[in-house]
Amino acid sequence: MKYPNGKKKRFTNQHTGSPSYGNRGMTLENDINQTNLYYLETGKAVIHKKPTPVQIVTVDYPKRSAAVIREAYFKQPSTTDYNGIYKGKYIDFEAKETKGTSLPFSNIHEHQIQHMKAVVEHGGICFLLVRFSAKDETYLLPAKSLFAAWDNQFHGGRKSLPYSYVAESGHPIPFSFHARVDYLSVVNKLYF
Amino acid sequence: MKYPNGKKKRFTNQHTGSPSYGNRGMTLENDINQTNLYYLETGKAVIHKKPTPVQIVTVDYPKRSAAVIREAYFKQPSTTDYNGIYKGKYIDFEAKETKGTSLPFSNIHEHQIQHMKAVVEHGGICFLLVRFSAKDETYLLPAKSLFAAWDNQFHGGRKSLPYSYVAESGHPIPFSFHARVDYLSVVNKLYF
Repeated sequence: MKYPNGKKKRFTNQHTGSPSYGNRGMTLENDINQTNLYYLETGKAVIHKKPTPVQIVTVDYPKRSAAVIREAYFKQPSTTDYNGIYKGKYIDFEAKETKGTSLPFSNIHEHQIQHMKAVVEHGGICFLLVRFSAKDETYLLPAKSLFAAWDNQFHGGRKSLPYSYVAESGHPIPFSFHARVDYLSVVNKLYF
Repeated sequence: MKYPNGKKKRFTNQHTGSPSYGNRGMTLENDINQTNLYYLETGKAVIHKKPTPVQIVTVDYPKRSAAVIREAYFKQPSTTDYNGIYKGKYIDFEAKETKGTSLPFSNIHEHQIQHMKAVVEHGGICFLLVRFSAKDETYLLPAKSLFAAWDNQFHGGRKSLPYSYVAESGHPIPFSFHARVDYLSVVNKLYF
């Protein structure tokens, strides 16, 4: 979140309420939000993105208009970004994209891994969605495969998820017109 | 969210990241957050409050320090505030408190009701927690009883949940030292 150039940026993503950092084209987040909306409208699942966690410090209450937050900071998320219900089961996942050939673990917080481990212990469906944007490929990596690589970094292993590992341990997600990241088709095969 | 006095307020609740509007003593939200933490630490359930939805407009990126949100607005929530997993099942609820003898429906948004209806259709555990703070009583009102009263307002019914209805259709929540609003003890009896 630190931009050393001292610039001011305007946030444009009105639909998701999340930082969009200008127009990057269709991000993974946008694709997932559209997919979730499609799942919701067709009665397949109820899955939402959680709002971006913000620490609010100062709020103005101008006369006859809406409250304005004047000072606030981004907080580290303590859970994953997405959760909900599918076929009566609890579903919970995080989504990350990278332009490179591996996803650095610095993109995932220790708290999020702890949360995912707790979800798995309680019998929830849990995974990571990873997009390699240069290849235009998106994978579902089951939580246990994520934990194995994550835990391994503290025993001399890599501090990132290389493409080869994700492609081998994960499952490619098909693209469809309505469900741009049709991850539930993969969830069906793996968990039901 | 409109305070007509044009005042500026500082937000103090660092733990939950939610507006606290000064020190009101133990609010229902604080009690639920403590209870959820206890459930999490004892391995009973994984249930979290979602962050307050905020529409971010302007962000400063000062040199060598964290990004500062300089203009943002509170958004209407499209889902409930709390969800998670308990005994492998999806659980989802909203929490409201009132100082009066009824909870006005203006405290609940149409979107939230639609969300709760979708959750029930998908087989999730769903309810409203209501605290009558003057009586110091908190109830779990099952979603279906909430829907009945909500839908009835459009057919000449009351535009609020009176204490009598909540006490009759709902279930009192016991207080315990560790679980200040021990709603899972009621969930156990009703849904398992």
